[in-house]
Amino acid sequence: MDILHYQKDFLNYLEAQTWVREPKNLYEPIDYILQLGGKKIRPILTLMAADIFSSDYIKAMPAALAVEVFHNFTLIHDDIMDAAPLRRGKVTVHEKWSINTGILSGDAMLILAYQYFENYEPIVFQKLAKLFSKTAIEVCDGQQLDVDFETRNDVTIDEYINMIRLKTSVLVAAALKMGAIVSKTDDKNADLIYDFGLNLGLAFQLQDDYLDTFGNPETFGKQVGGDIIENKKTYLYLKALEVASEDEVGKLKYLYRKKRKENTVKIADVKRIFLLNEIPILIKEEIESYTNKAFETLNHMDIKETDKKNLKNFGLWLMNRSV
Amino acid sequence: MDILHYQKDFLNYLEAQTWVREPKNLYEPIDYILQLGGKKIRPILTLMAADIFSSDYIKAMPAALAVEVFHNFTLIHDDIMDAAPLRRGKVTVHEKWSINTGILSGDAMLILAYQYFENYEPIVFQKLAKLFSKTAIEVCDGQQLDVDFETRNDVTIDEYINMIRLKTSVLVAAALKMGAIVSKTDDKNADLIYDFGLNLGLAFQLQDDYLDTFGNPETFGKQVGGDIIENKKTYLYLKALEVASEDEVGKLKYLYRKKRKENTVKIADVKRIFLLNEIPILIKEEIESYTNKAFETLNHMDIKETDKKNLKNFGLWLMNRSV
Repeated sequence: MDILHYQKDFLNYLEAQTWVREPKNLYEPIDYILQLGGKKIRPILTLMAADIFSSDYIKAMPAALAVEVFHNFTLIHDDIMDAAPLRRGKVTVHEKWSINTGILSGDAMLILAYQYFENYEPIVFQKLAKLFSKTAIEVCDGQQLDVDFETRNDVTIDEYINMIRLKTSVLVAAALKMGAIVSKTDDKNADLIYDFGLNLGLAFQLQDDYLDTFGNPETFGKQVGGDIIENKKTYLYLKALEVASEDEVGKLKYLYRKKRKENTVKIADVKRIFLLNEIPILIKEEIESYTNKAFETLNHMDIKETDKKNLKNFGLWLMNRSV
Repeated sequence: MDILHYQKDFLNYLEAQTWVREPKNLYEPIDYILQLGGKKIRPILTLMAADIFSSDYIKAMPAALAVEVFHNFTLIHDDIMDAAPLRRGKVTVHEKWSINTGILSGDAMLILAYQYFENYEPIVFQKLAKLFSKTAIEVCDGQQLDVDFETRNDVTIDEYINMIRLKTSVLVAAALKMGAIVSKTDDKNADLIYDFGLNLGLAFQLQDDYLDTFGNPETFGKQVGGDIIENKKTYLYLKALEVASEDEVGKLKYLYRKKRKENTVKIADVKRIFLLNEIPILIKEEIESYTNKAFETLNHMDIKETDKKNLKNFGLWLMNRSV
């Protein structure tokens, strides 16, 4: 099992596809976003699971591509909704072309994703498409909840965890399960690898919340403090509201009331409240709890011990990204 | 075979669905557009085909619903792209809520449409989903071509026919074929009913072009002359460019150069050029040709003579809408 090997093979497979066809104005944006880079973690998960459950990850390529195309569809439509000018350091599709192009090319990608499942025979096809539809709807639900939370002041931690589960973790889980489905392993294994992915996905997303505020600016990909600047109600913020004193809660709510031109002081003030209330420790406990839940599923999986070790190492590799 | 009966049953089936669930902001717009009315021609076609090929149209209900939900997804996204304030006399989704809501609720509908096919066993499921994906991509292609044509001055009649084929006719054809697939009739019948729908769909769309300019304002649902006001390059316009004198072509292009506040004179001028060049006669010949092509497929279909007569009557009923 070699992550970089999956990544290279997937990139070659992606490269070999002919994206641009007529009408060009519909397909060029699709080619553009798929060439924007990114680590391709989701398709790698599909290939990895297929390798573990059947030692044949090549046959999982179309399913892996479906996951990647779907993920990029969500990026195009999310970027429109967020009015984001940049994605992976490059101009977003709706900025480069237009909002209308972003909508329509995104729609086409969602359909194209389903079409990759046509490479499989009816029973596998149906299993993949069912899981995919369920997951895709959940991702829409999660996106809507994320939007709803922006204007709500009573979001609970449970609601937040549910939102990130839907918005990001279910796709990680489904990517792994698709590898299991293509491999025709039993339902128990398939469900366990799904749970592995779901919990690891939650741990990963919570770690993202942590790194966004407390990460090392030199190694964290995005701007450290970005969530604070944007007044995002992350786990850190919601946990602080839960455990901090009345005074600190008031201060925090005041700091999150509007966006500012100058953020250095705001970031320092918010971080101070987080640190005083040991929020970094509390979130690390939560991250560890989800990581352990993920690893716990491995005990019940009917696969080789070396593969269990590999999955665990993958999880550790994923979680030990630079702080 | 009773169209109104299919319509009533379908509306009851639609009514019985629970659209609104959490998050409400995602599903309420879906409920809204599906309750906006409309003749439900596409799902009726699915039921009609199933009735003809298996005498059991009830089992085609989920497929019919998939077609209707997909159609309404295209309406939401098209209305955003056209910045349309009204749909069937009511406020459009993006006007009532927001563009972001329209994008996301539309996305969810596209996924929901696929989910209705899960009511069928794997082989039927795959056939339906494959046809659906192929059709859905074609509809996106057609929508993009329609957008492209707005800023092109060299659109040929063949390109126009291809655009309306993709944008509207393939869905009519697929709706019928889905009824055939659910009924497990042979591929030959399924392909023939598809061709029946494709040609009837083209005839219907061309008739729409005709009625938009020459229809009776009292019975035509939309504003007569709307296409002329919008400078739409319809069959009438493109045919006139082909057959009219240089002077008339110049006049026509001049009239279509910009939008005006006052359109009575413009509409009269354009209509005069159309009439002088016998465009109404030419388009009627084209409509008849496609209608006949549709009816021709019936000769090769392996179904009862009464059903052939019913399909033909349905075609005549559809085409003889008030002029």
